[in-house]
Amino acid sequence: MKAHVYVTLKRTVLDPQGQTIHGALKRMQYTGVEEVRQGKYFQLTLRGMMDASDARAQVERIARDVLTNPVIEEFTYRIEE
Amino acid sequence: MKAHVYVTLKRTVLDPQGQTIHGALKRMQYTGVEEVRQGKYFQLTLRGMMDASDARAQVERIARDVLTNPVIEEFTYRIEE
Repeated sequence: MKAHVYVTLKRTVLDPQGQTIHGALKRMQYTGVEEVRQGKYFQLTLRGMMDASDARAQVERIARDVLTNPVIEEFTYRIEE
Repeated sequence: MKAHVYVTLKRTVLDPQGQTIHGALKRMQYTGVEEVRQGKYFQLTLRGMMDASDARAQVERIARDVLTNPVIEEFTYRIEE
């Protein structure tokens, strides 16, 4: 079983990395892009015998306690069977 | 329209960041996790008037030429209407 966790800066937090990429894209004539936000992506491989609700609870706890800085970041996740 | 680009290290490339996180999880008694791989996540906001196949082509080019180092990384993406 795999879990995919996506961590992004909160909407209200400035994202200088994303702005730098956006600036580069504009200079390279990619004019179709209005905004870029950069985040982190984690792929967790879970032990097979875990049931789905256990997996969900454990991934949520890991994402909240370890992978995300709750002051400036938020996360979403997806479990893949 | 939004595009989500996920960049990960190729399977054959060592991921010390992921290993460090995995080690920390083990020490914190999260025993259900077998492996952690870390990647990058980009959220691109695209101009509204772009049609879907244009958007797909442009995002694919940006991901390949700007967001990914093809020697060690690979990407997937998803367009959201």
